[in-house]
Amino acid sequence: MFNPRPIAFVRSPHQDTNDVPKGLGAKHTAEGVLEIQPEFAAGLADIEGFSHLYVLWEFDRASGYELTAHPPSDDRPHGVFATRSPQRPNPIGLTVVELLRRDGAKLYVRGLDMLDGTPILDIKPYLSNVPEEKLRRGWLAEAEARKR
Amino acid sequence: MFNPRPIAFVRSPHQDTNDVPKGLGAKHTAEGVLEIQPEFAAGLADIEGFSHLYVLWEFDRASGYELTAHPPSDDRPHGVFATRSPQRPNPIGLTVVELLRRDGAKLYVRGLDMLDGTPILDIKPYLSNVPEEKLRRGWLAEAEARKR
Repeated sequence: MFNPRPIAFVRSPHQDTNDVPKGLGAKHTAEGVLEIQPEFAAGLADIEGFSHLYVLWEFDRASGYELTAHPPSDDRPHGVFATRSPQRPNPIGLTVVELLRRDGAKLYVRGLDMLDGTPILDIKPYLSNVPEEKLRRGWLAEAEARKR
Repeated sequence: MFNPRPIAFVRSPHQDTNDVPKGLGAKHTAEGVLEIQPEFAAGLADIEGFSHLYVLWEFDRASGYELTAHPPSDDRPHGVFATRSPQRPNPIGLTVVELLRRDGAKLYVRGLDMLDGTPILDIKPYLSNVPEEKLRRGWLAEAEARKR
């Protein structure tokens, strides 16, 4: 397969995994900057027209993987592919951020759940969504219901 | 960075990039199967509760990258990170599919835009969406407006 390389790095207020809101109802409102490497900056042309972006990044401080995950949002284990656990066979994270503004090769964004210094693999425009009435949220909806 | 490995492969009716609907208004309704490798199948536990999944995959038949992309949905070029172009610095694709049913290590899904045999890097539950009234779609909305 391909050899991943960082196209950018995250500047985030989160220095430690304990700083990142977790569990049921966690809100990610942290603001920060995606600093694109100079050699890839030309790839940002016209990105400022999008309100939201997908950010693909590496869980660079996770080690190894577990097929059974114990997410902080539930007291029951679930398969890793049914969770956002960092300990995945390919340690890739996915976050939707709101693009606040662009300044050259810097994207100012809201909604970070990554640690400071996290390497970014890719940025894509967020285009579509699934209508709420068609969405089922599996064990997470059940865990929420049990907490009520 | 990490060394990517395929956790699954796509069985898709699309044998060739020409088979995949492209351009403005393209709808992805193709059905197929995500075949998870036996050693990762335990990671699927409880996935059947989710109606939609994120699939991260490798553009394994793309070669090289271009920072300026020429998407089929517009007659104007845009930065690669403002498009879904396959020719990206890290050739990772992202698709939201609808999970129809699970049969052991096989996930039957709708909404494939990948070619048959595409290697899959990761599967995650699709949980949230951005409210339509908060979403701006940049050059794509402009290209649609020009076509009207």
